[in-house]
Amino acid sequence: MSAKVWLVGAGPGDPELLTLKAVRALREADVVMIDDLVNPAVLEHCPRARVIAVGKRGGCRSTPQAFIHRLMLRYARQGKCVVRLKGGDPCIFGRGGEEAQWLRERQIEVELVNGITAGLAGATQCDISLTLRGVARGVTLVTAHTQDDSELNWRALSQGGTTLVIYMGVAKLGEIRQQLLDGGMALDTPVAMIENASMPCQRECRSNLTAMQEDAYSFQLKSPAILVIGAVAASAALQQGLPASVTPLPLPSSAAL
Amino acid sequence: MSAKVWLVGAGPGDPELLTLKAVRALREADVVMIDDLVNPAVLEHCPRARVIAVGKRGGCRSTPQAFIHRLMLRYARQGKCVVRLKGGDPCIFGRGGEEAQWLRERQIEVELVNGITAGLAGATQCDISLTLRGVARGVTLVTAHTQDDSELNWRALSQGGTTLVIYMGVAKLGEIRQQLLDGGMALDTPVAMIENASMPCQRECRSNLTAMQEDAYSFQLKSPAILVIGAVAASAALQQGLPASVTPLPLPSSAAL
Repeated sequence: MSAKVWLVGAGPGDPELLTLKAVRALREADVVMIDDLVNPAVLEHCPRARVIAVGKRGGCRSTPQAFIHRLMLRYARQGKCVVRLKGGDPCIFGRGGEEAQWLRERQIEVELVNGITAGLAGATQCDISLTLRGVARGVTLVTAHTQDDSELNWRALSQGGTTLVIYMGVAKLGEIRQQLLDGGMALDTPVAMIENASMPCQRECRSNLTAMQEDAYSFQLKSPAILVIGAVAASAALQQGLPASVTPLPLPSSAAL
Repeated sequence: MSAKVWLVGAGPGDPELLTLKAVRALREADVVMIDDLVNPAVLEHCPRARVIAVGKRGGCRSTPQAFIHRLMLRYARQGKCVVRLKGGDPCIFGRGGEEAQWLRERQIEVELVNGITAGLAGATQCDISLTLRGVARGVTLVTAHTQDDSELNWRALSQGGTTLVIYMGVAKLGEIRQQLLDGGMALDTPVAMIENASMPCQRECRSNLTAMQEDAYSFQLKSPAILVIGAVAASAALQQGLPASVTPLPLPSSAAL
């Protein structure tokens, strides 16, 4: 019996952002356990598999983590090929590592398959370069989710010189804003709030650190959404007719080429 | 005439980590311009396309950026479907945004396709959870490349509480080490150095901040490689019989489940 569990990233929503390896895993699957945030369209690759929804959104824990663990273990021990399908990348705020370790401790073979994480896809779809020569030499992905009790040093995040991408932050906009302001980030730092990254229903709201909470309210921003905070979040401003409070960045001159 | 350029991430090396969208772009391509760091195995998806190598490694600029721009423009204006294939993700240290803007200013339709970036794939293949509840609430991707003249605040990066993933750092290990130590990072902070992420020839060297330069030398670490710095880089220590200097982290107890 194969006794294998694949922990697979389904990407940010666009079913075409699935990797070939994820498709192979789905084709081999006997059982697919699918998270809430996964686009069900990807199930076209596993028409014969048994599909189990194990949704678990922040706030309402419809399927406890321990139950998901035991379910994976039970099917793997029956010799079934199990695919656990997660939104984005299983290792970016996805507990992929924890689940892999728990299964391996029980002698189950595990294979992790990376996916495109929503923060990167959302920014790309909004023409935001998270890293941009001369502007942002890096990018920091963090979660605002409070169930994670590890320490975040907001002052350091405010001053690191990287673009900030915040996941699961919609319910905490006021808190995030205050922490970043307290950390020394400028009031007019550009902010892009991107709902349903990479999906046809993707929406983006451009704002700045001062106005982000009000603007999100007017925009009726809903989860799942990511926040992109930093100079690069304004770089498409020229094309989009943004309010004057958002200053477009100087971009590399094409004349120089 | 279609006059379209796809800026496509080919992923970290494993040809199976290509997305379905990247495969579609390759199938439609008349011309494929391929970077040095892309695994040529992915060209199986474009058997009829004209393939042009436009390699450009850090240090030796074999194909100037301006030449690449003009080449894309020329083929697009001929009505050809052009795919510019980049290692990893075109928007993470890949100049995807710059190239897209330059082309759009010349009325060329551009579509960006995300790819799995090497830092995420390398960590996953080494069973490192870049984000891990209770240990690292985020991850910061930065480049050590000096052609980028934007500011990095190493003190802030040292203290942000996120896992650090450094690209293009092999030639600068001493400098990185010193900056992080000066920034207040602990001497025994675990470091994983991962060469050829996701490829069959992937190699990993586990070390810590104090010893990383010496260990990389003994290991004969070569580019391309990524550095993962932070508590999570030691989490596989138990399985791997690491030197005693690397202390394994306490991981969430499975007994609690």
